[in-house]
Amino acid sequence: MTMDAASKIRKQFAFLAELDQLKSVIRQSPLINRTRYENSAEHSWHLAIFAIVLSEHADGVDPLAVATLLLVHDIVEIDAGDTPLHDPGRDIGVVNIKERDAARRIFGLLPEPQATHLLSLWEEFEANETPNAQFAKALDRLQPLLLNTLTDGGTWTRNNITQEQVMQRYGPVIEGASKSLWVEAAALIRRHFSKVEGAEEAKTDSVESNV
Amino acid sequence: MTMDAASKIRKQFAFLAELDQLKSVIRQSPLINRTRYENSAEHSWHLAIFAIVLSEHADGVDPLAVATLLLVHDIVEIDAGDTPLHDPGRDIGVVNIKERDAARRIFGLLPEPQATHLLSLWEEFEANETPNAQFAKALDRLQPLLLNTLTDGGTWTRNNITQEQVMQRYGPVIEGASKSLWVEAAALIRRHFSKVEGAEEAKTDSVESNV
Ligand SMILES: [Ca+2]
Repeated sequence: MTMDAASKIRKQFAFLAELDQLKSVIRQSPLINRTRYENSAEHSWHLAIFAIVLSEHADGVDPLAVATLLLVHDIVEIDAGDTPLHDPGRDIGVVNIKERDAARRIFGLLPEPQATHLLSLWEEFEANETPNAQFAKALDRLQPLLLNTLTDGGTWTRNNITQEQVMQRYGPVIEGASKSLWVEAAALIRRHFSKVEGAEEAKTDSVESNV
Repeated sequence: MTMDAASKIRKQFAFLAELDQLKSVIRQSPLINRTRYENSAEHSWHLAIFAIVLSEHADGVDPLAVATLLLVHDIVEIDAGDTPLHDPGRDIGVVNIKERDAARRIFGLLPEPQATHLLSLWEEFEANETPNAQFAKALDRLQPLLLNTLTDGGTWTRNNITQEQVMQRYGPVIEGASKSLWVEAAALIRRHFSKVEGAEEAKTDSVESNV
């Protein structure tokens, strides 16, 4: 082995060890079994499989390219932390600067030209211009949506988010990349909120019958 | 949307929701920050990035194909549990039967031909015959090796595994797929065990000087 290969591998090992920290970045979404909140590493794994399984419902996307974007899209959170979708105090300008610095530092641990290549994948995701990036962003909305509908509302309940807000925050991103996925996702959202309403009416009824 | 597309998406959603359980399958390896043990979902994410970053050190492999094998390789653990490499009581025959049943059930949640396609990826990994599968298996040994050397021996210390046993259990699988990765990995192993020996000699010395 040349010295060059050895020093390359050492840099790659340092990068891969650094990534371990993404397993400790905690998101707002609960696991479906509600034992704890999801971390960004397992979330990224889940999303990569969403890409492999669901890409047939989007036009002009390459399933493995979408999966790759999703595998790297959250790595910047090692430095910048997770920015919850429903956080009213989030300042996207500040977040963007932090994430860009994080991307330079973390992907910069790799040897060239790999550092530049992985940085460009993260930039492709962020720029949201290619069909692959747009579909990756859609899946990044769809996955927590699915978890929320399976955990009595998850982050929606926790943040007092209405059905209208959910439709606004998830709809355009998902529907823009796949109409058929949005039809099914919207049905899950409506079913969730009609259950919530049903439960609230039942509560009101039982209070009234106690009066 | 045709009824057919709708029923396909519902099956795919059911499969993706089922996968959430892999986040609760706990492995023996500690995280590098030692706050807890690793789960199989985040382990699979980590491995997929190992594939993307390290494939240049193996001959005749396709990085994204290797990543895909690694994304699906542990899904069977949802039913069959994790089988630790250093468990002296593990019965590989029994494990194989359990994992095969698990693969049929879980991938069988998907619509065809996707169910058969994903099952075939898991079978390719298990059969360990293609260069992609052999490299995927090598990374599945390399990742815990790296974590162990960064956590004072991790699963080796926990299971009283000697340097010779480590060389035997990791060497052929990694070296068979990539000589240059094995050179660097073996150096990390030797450095770990020489530190352990150094610490034990220091202990013996201080006991002797107390006598
Ligand atoms: Ca494994």
